[in-house]
Amino acid sequence: MTQSIGIAITGVSGRMGQMLAREVIAHPEMHLAGGIERSGHDWIGQDLGEAMGGTATGVIVTDNAAEGFANAKAVIDFTAPVATIAFAAAAAEAGIVHVIGTTGMTADEIAQLKAPASRAVIVRAGNMSLGVNLLTLLTRKVAAALDEDFDIEIIESHHNQKVDAPSGTALMLGEAAAEGRGVALAEVSDSGRDGITGARKRGDIGFSAIRGGDIVGEHDVMFAGAGERIVLRHIASDRSLFARGALKAALWGQGRDAGEYDMLDVLGLSD
Amino acid sequence: MTQSIGIAITGVSGRMGQMLAREVIAHPEMHLAGGIERSGHDWIGQDLGEAMGGTATGVIVTDNAAEGFANAKAVIDFTAPVATIAFAAAAAEAGIVHVIGTTGMTADEIAQLKAPASRAVIVRAGNMSLGVNLLTLLTRKVAAALDEDFDIEIIESHHNQKVDAPSGTALMLGEAAAEGRGVALAEVSDSGRDGITGARKRGDIGFSAIRGGDIVGEHDVMFAGAGERIVLRHIASDRSLFARGALKAALWGQGRDAGEYDMLDVLGLSD
Amino acid sequence: MTQSIGIAITGVSGRMGQMLAREVIAHPEMHLAGGIERSGHDWIGQDLGEAMGGTATGVIVTDNAAEGFANAKAVIDFTAPVATIAFAAAAAEAGIVHVIGTTGMTADEIAQLKAPASRAVIVRAGNMSLGVNLLTLLTRKVAAALDEDFDIEIIESHHNQKVDAPSGTALMLGEAAAEGRGVALAEVSDSGRDGITGARKRGDIGFSAIRGGDIVGEHDVMFAGAGERIVLRHIASDRSLFARGALKAALWGQGRDAGEYDMLDVLGLSD
Amino acid sequence: MTQSIGIAITGVSGRMGQMLAREVIAHPEMHLAGGIERSGHDWIGQDLGEAMGGTATGVIVTDNAAEGFANAKAVIDFTAPVATIAFAAAAAEAGIVHVIGTTGMTADEIAQLKAPASRAVIVRAGNMSLGVNLLTLLTRKVAAALDEDFDIEIIESHHNQKVDAPSGTALMLGEAAAEGRGVALAEVSDSGRDGITGARKRGDIGFSAIRGGDIVGEHDVMFAGAGERIVLRHIASDRSLFARGALKAALWGQGRDAGEYDMLDVLGLSD
Repeated sequence: MTQSIGIAITGVSGRMGQMLAREVIAHPEMHLAGGIERSGHDWIGQDLGEAMGGTATGVIVTDNAAEGFANAKAVIDFTAPVATIAFAAAAAEAGIVHVIGTTGMTADEIAQLKAPASRAVIVRAGNMSLGVNLLTLLTRKVAAALDEDFDIEIIESHHNQKVDAPSGTALMLGEAAAEGRGVALAEVSDSGRDGITGARKRGDIGFSAIRGGDIVGEHDVMFAGAGERIVLRHIASDRSLFARGALKAALWGQGRDAGEYDMLDVLGLSD
Repeated sequence: MTQSIGIAITGVSGRMGQMLAREVIAHPEMHLAGGIERSGHDWIGQDLGEAMGGTATGVIVTDNAAEGFANAKAVIDFTAPVATIAFAAAAAEAGIVHVIGTTGMTADEIAQLKAPASRAVIVRAGNMSLGVNLLTLLTRKVAAALDEDFDIEIIESHHNQKVDAPSGTALMLGEAAAEGRGVALAEVSDSGRDGITGARKRGDIGFSAIRGGDIVGEHDVMFAGAGERIVLRHIASDRSLFARGALKAALWGQGRDAGEYDMLDVLGLSD
Repeated sequence: MTQSIGIAITGVSGRMGQMLAREVIAHPEMHLAGGIERSGHDWIGQDLGEAMGGTATGVIVTDNAAEGFANAKAVIDFTAPVATIAFAAAAAEAGIVHVIGTTGMTADEIAQLKAPASRAVIVRAGNMSLGVNLLTLLTRKVAAALDEDFDIEIIESHHNQKVDAPSGTALMLGEAAAEGRGVALAEVSDSGRDGITGARKRGDIGFSAIRGGDIVGEHDVMFAGAGERIVLRHIASDRSLFARGALKAALWGQGRDAGEYDMLDVLGLSD
Repeated sequence: MTQSIGIAITGVSGRMGQMLAREVIAHPEMHLAGGIERSGHDWIGQDLGEAMGGTATGVIVTDNAAEGFANAKAVIDFTAPVATIAFAAAAAEAGIVHVIGTTGMTADEIAQLKAPASRAVIVRAGNMSLGVNLLTLLTRKVAAALDEDFDIEIIESHHNQKVDAPSGTALMLGEAAAEGRGVALAEVSDSGRDGITGARKRGDIGFSAIRGGDIVGEHDVMFAGAGERIVLRHIASDRSLFARGALKAALWGQGRDAGEYDMLDVLGLSD
């Protein structure tokens, strides 16, 4: 008999937090085991289910990570870099899987995950969807197969509330393309084209950011050569996609050796 | 019996100039009647056909507009603003149709076409293709029909040698969208998105410029609302499209009243 | 003070029926006033809100149209042709607006709406979204502006559960294109291309149907000429779009003269 | 010093034949060494260059393959299955590379290439472009990575003179997808959707054929899952792409062991 896995969720009152909670409730092999919010938040001390406007779950929202992780086998965390580093320490202490969807972490912040990852499983990804991770892999391979006769452009579209450009996923795809070519993205990245730009520089990787309506997220990686183009495209049409990917990672991490993993590991796409 | 129309071409040694010359030679109702280049150019004094590497045409390339226009009924001009203003005066003097495909003219420069246009026919357009002009019209209408719940984004793709962004055609489409909404493009234009941009401003018209390979020219006008998007797209796959549009304008202008016209007039799409 | 409009819904237990009910409940100017299902259905006699798994609404589901329409000012009907004809008579008798989203009606069945439409307001449309109706209008205009040098192709994509091809909306767009050209769609329609087809027949309107995943609905109308293409595209990403359009039609119909209307009337896009 | 490679071309008066001849003439490492046409053709006995309306090449068009191949190191052949089988025997006899772009060959016809391939190099491909061959490879890999929760659809667009559907390249992509899934394409292929089709069958590979204008060739392989789609797209914008690929194959085959190869071998993309 498979045992149901207890899941804790950080930032549980946010849009992503609530979506994660609903997906966990609906999942046949999981149950909610913890809900964490920052100190002073309205929800602290309330039943998580009731705070979400539904039926009681028996899980009381807390601002204490150790307490919130006590009955969990994994914590899913889409918060902010500083909070995530603190959660990583607490998760390692509790010996549970830490699934990190937090974006915008600097290289320094990422380095601080090394210590907790030596004691517990961390799965971290800028985008938790199967499709985007597969696209990343393909981008690297195609960039490696084609030479600079093919210009690489990355085009992404998102809803009108997004505050940064290019998207984290677009940058992840750009990194993959640069890696395929054996160059550093920072040296070839060209975003925000406007005005008298001059001819495109050979070897550049260009970025364009389209914003409008409630577009969930679309990414194109274009390789444009003489007389032909290859385009690798991903369309996300449902935000719950990302929550479901995180749940899959939480399950996959059970019983693994301590270490840092990404979604390619979870999806069995590493090479 | 229809009489063949003599056509003069300015900047005739350039890529567009030669393409125009070839299209005129191939056209059943036209013949080459003049070829103009700047003073000091190699081709001056040569037979135009031979300079192009073909058979002789009997037309000698000249740096004198009056001379080059003497046997023509129309001049087709894809050069630069200052040259175009001088050609407009010479064409009015010669009493021939002036088809202007020159881009990048300022409001001041455009105002200098008023005097010659009071004496002769001028047809001026940022893009000579039927499809783009139709798209411009549709863009204005759709922008007028939809309110600001629909975010407008204009996305264009061109070859890697293009030196400016957004394209002149993209700006023309942006003007049409702004006009449909009754706003000034300069006040709502948002191009070159990059970094921490904040949420999209309601009412903005966004621009993205993609550059790669030998893409002739593609333009999307997207209206993105809640749960739905309308996209008006034009794909040009053959540069001779623009030359053929200019020839059509030269024919259309024969026998018209003096004045400034655009391709919507030529195509019978004005409203 | 605006009075809240009572809305009845037919086929209320179905996916579309329930979505309509939820949208009515959430609408500030509307309330549920009737729920109709076929005789023998489980929900008959139950409170509509409770049958949907929510809180009671005070509306009891009935199989009697007259009873279900008694407290309503409009009925929204996405059922089947035969049922819709019967509902039209009952709605005219009750003197309420009948919003019809039912698809697949034959010309004969549509003709049977004439009598009830002489007594009450009927709004009927194959697709209730603003965007698709606008696209229909544009399709007719562009088809009228371009000649047969431009080949017309209509391409639609839908989820993998859809049972018919091309979609009703694709056919509506095809009708608009044929009308713009002054031809009958039946004589130029070309769908299901497969095998040795021979060259495309000039003047044909082609249809392609793509099926996969949970695609809500995407439609392209392509005009392909020499060296250029115009594409008019609509993307629906949220099914509630269609429910919201129906609600808008129900409000719009209040106080209108009896007659048959479509969404172009509702949206003020008729010309 | 690299020696120039002599190339023979079959069906040399056709559109593809002439394009091949022009590309060979322009190629720095090649020269025309033979031109073959069917018996009775006007061009037989004429100088190939003059027959094409240009300057003399010294190559006389012949209907005798042995004669046409005598001075060549490779023959490029875009003709018809029966002719191609005969040319394969002649090329093996002459000991030269046979590049086959002929489409529509049955399994039986392909089997007849075994004998000549045991004596000489044959490179055969349904599409000679780098991009399409790379796309084929990606299609196989992605189909293998994703399960049947992702519906596979192949959509192609071509000019209005194409007489068959789906295109040979679309079928090649379908074969790659089926191979990736470990199924036979014939058992899951679904093309020409029209009318009451019922819901999409799980595991099917769908095909759609769009025809219009002068589209050179565009292919999409779509993997549509729950809430996300991956699309692998190729756009060919210049027919000479295919000719250049064939020339590359002719060069690559020089000095290889006898055997059957495809463009993945030529491009170094085999795995």
